[in-house]
Amino acid sequence: MAKRKMILDLDTGVDDALAIAYAVADPDVDLIGIVSSYGNNRMKTCAQNSLKLLELLGATDVPVFEGEAHSCTTDHFDPEQVSLDIHGQNGIGEVQLPDPKRSVEKESGVDFFIDAAHKYGKDLIIVPTGPMTNLAAAIKKDPSITKLIGNVTFMGGALTVEGNVSEAAEANIHQDPKAADEVLESDLPLTMVGLDVTLRTLLTKKETKKWRDLGTKAGKAYADITDYYIDAYYNMDIDKKGCAIHDPLSVGVAINPSFVSTISLYMKCVTDGPEAGRTVGNNARLHDPNPNVKVAVNVDKDLYLKVFMDQLTGLFKQH
Amino acid sequence: MAKRKMILDLDTGVDDALAIAYAVADPDVDLIGIVSSYGNNRMKTCAQNSLKLLELLGATDVPVFEGEAHSCTTDHFDPEQVSLDIHGQNGIGEVQLPDPKRSVEKESGVDFFIDAAHKYGKDLIIVPTGPMTNLAAAIKKDPSITKLIGNVTFMGGALTVEGNVSEAAEANIHQDPKAADEVLESDLPLTMVGLDVTLRTLLTKKETKKWRDLGTKAGKAYADITDYYIDAYYNMDIDKKGCAIHDPLSVGVAINPSFVSTISLYMKCVTDGPEAGRTVGNNARLHDPNPNVKVAVNVDKDLYLKVFMDQLTGLFKQH
Repeated sequence: MAKRKMILDLDTGVDDALAIAYAVADPDVDLIGIVSSYGNNRMKTCAQNSLKLLELLGATDVPVFEGEAHSCTTDHFDPEQVSLDIHGQNGIGEVQLPDPKRSVEKESGVDFFIDAAHKYGKDLIIVPTGPMTNLAAAIKKDPSITKLIGNVTFMGGALTVEGNVSEAAEANIHQDPKAADEVLESDLPLTMVGLDVTLRTLLTKKETKKWRDLGTKAGKAYADITDYYIDAYYNMDIDKKGCAIHDPLSVGVAINPSFVSTISLYMKCVTDGPEAGRTVGNNARLHDPNPNVKVAVNVDKDLYLKVFMDQLTGLFKQH
Repeated sequence: MAKRKMILDLDTGVDDALAIAYAVADPDVDLIGIVSSYGNNRMKTCAQNSLKLLELLGATDVPVFEGEAHSCTTDHFDPEQVSLDIHGQNGIGEVQLPDPKRSVEKESGVDFFIDAAHKYGKDLIIVPTGPMTNLAAAIKKDPSITKLIGNVTFMGGALTVEGNVSEAAEANIHQDPKAADEVLESDLPLTMVGLDVTLRTLLTKKETKKWRDLGTKAGKAYADITDYYIDAYYNMDIDKKGCAIHDPLSVGVAINPSFVSTISLYMKCVTDGPEAGRTVGNNARLHDPNPNVKVAVNVDKDLYLKVFMDQLTGLFKQH
C-alpha cells in the first residue's frame, strides 16, 4: 500500500507531541505538514513546539504552518490555567528544547489544507487533535474540499461518555463549537476518536521508563514531557495510574481503523447553552442513509498500546 | 425454545398499548403479568387501560398489578399537558373501551417483580417502557433480584441522540432520574432501547388502515388509538410522516435481539442540574470489563416493522 498523505492539525501539547512522534514513526504515513492551532497553548507557541519536536525527531522535512489563533466566534485566545497545569507553561511539560533552526511556512495553514485537498484528493488524511477552527475556515474558503479529502480523523468530542470540560463537552470541541458543528454537518467523511475511546487508553511511567532507558535525546525528552503529564493527571486527580493517550490514537486510527469499533451517525455540535460543545447524533437526520461520521466507541487498547510503544520506542532509539 | 416469561412495566399510553399487543401476539412470549406505572397518565388510569386492552385482545389470563404512583423523589404525580396531548386525556387516544370485567391484583407490582425473580430466575425478562420507579423499588426491597433476573430490556433514555423532553433527557427516564440511575448502576443485565433506535422506526396510516380493514373490534380500536397518536405527531410537528413505535420495539428486542445492533457500556443517569435524566456512559468504569448494559444504537427498521405488522395484524384478525 502506498503511504497515506497526512496533515496533522495540532495545538502542541503533550499528547500532540506524542501524535507527532507516532506519525513520524509510522511507516505507512507520509507526514506532509503540520498546521498549528490554539488550545493547549497559543497558536504561535504550539507552532514553535511542533518545529522543536520535529527537529528532535530528525523530521526537518515536515513543514509547519500557522493556523487560526482563536475561535471563529472570538477575537482573542488565552490558554486556560487548567491547560497550563496539565501541559506545562510551555505546552511540553516544561522540557526545554533548543530553539528551532527552521521557521514556520509563509503559506497559511488554511490555504495549505485547501491546496493539499486539491493536490492529493482521496489520498489525503487530515488529523485534527485540537479545535476545528482551521478546518472550518478552509471549508468556508473553499467548500469543494469536503468532496475531495479522503478522510478526517479527529481527536475530539464525546458521544457515549461525559465530557472533560463540562458534563456535555470535550475540551477541543468546546474551544470552538460553531467550527465543530460546521465540520460535523459538512459532507466530509469523518472518523471521531473522542473521549469514548481515548479515556480507555492508559500510558504509565513503566512505558516512559523504556524511552528514558534508551539513553537518547529524544527518548529522554519524551519521557520527561510525558512524565509531566502523568504527574499532572495524578496531582489533579484525573487518573492515579497514568495518562490517557488521546491525540496519537487518532493518528493510529487514521491509518489502522481496526484499533477501534465504530458506529455510523450523522452528527452535530451543540453551539449554545449549558450543553455547548456537546457532540451528538443529529436527530433530524436519523432516517437518512449513509451517515458521514464513524464514531469510535470501543478500542483494542492492548493492541494499540503495543503498536504505539513499538513505533515510538523504535523512533526514539534513533534520535 | 421454551417461551420466555415476560413482565411488562407500562404507563399505558398509545405505544404501551402496542407493546401489549406485541407481547400477547408473540408466540415466543409467555406474558405473566403487567405492572402499572405512571407517566403517560396516572398509574391507576394506566392500570385500567392495560386491563381494558387485555380484554379487547382476549388475554384475560394476564394479571395486572399496581406499581408506584409517583417518582421516588416526589409524593405526587400529575400527567403533563404534553402527555395528554400526545396520548389523549384517557391515555389511549380518546378511544372508549368497555369497563374491564377484571380488577387489578391485590399484590403490589413491586412484590410481583420480586416473587417472579425468585420463581423464574434467568427465564424472566422484564420490559419497562415507563419510568424505572417500580424496578428501583423492587431492587431496594430485595437487592438479591439483580443477580436472579435474566434480562431487563427497557424503552428509555438516549445515548447517541438528543432527548425529547430536554436536549439531554428522554421522557421515561426524566420522570425519575434517581430510580433510573439506581437501575443502571445495579448489576442487572440490561438492554437499553432508547431514542437512538426508536426514533428510527416509523408507523404510518398505511399500516393502521390494514388493521381497520380487518373489520374486527381490536383492529378498529387499535387503528383509532394509533391514528390519534399519528395525528398528534403531525399536529405537534414531531414527525409529519407518522409516529415512532417506541415501546413495542423493546418487547421485540427482548425476544429477538438481532433487530438491533448494540454497544456494551457501564452507564449512569445524571440526577441533578440541566442534564438531569441524561443516560450516559459511566466514565468512572471505562476500564472495567463486562459492562452490564447493552445499548441499542441501530435497528433493522424494515425487518422490525414487518414482524411488528405480522404479529399485530395476526392478533387483531382474531379479536
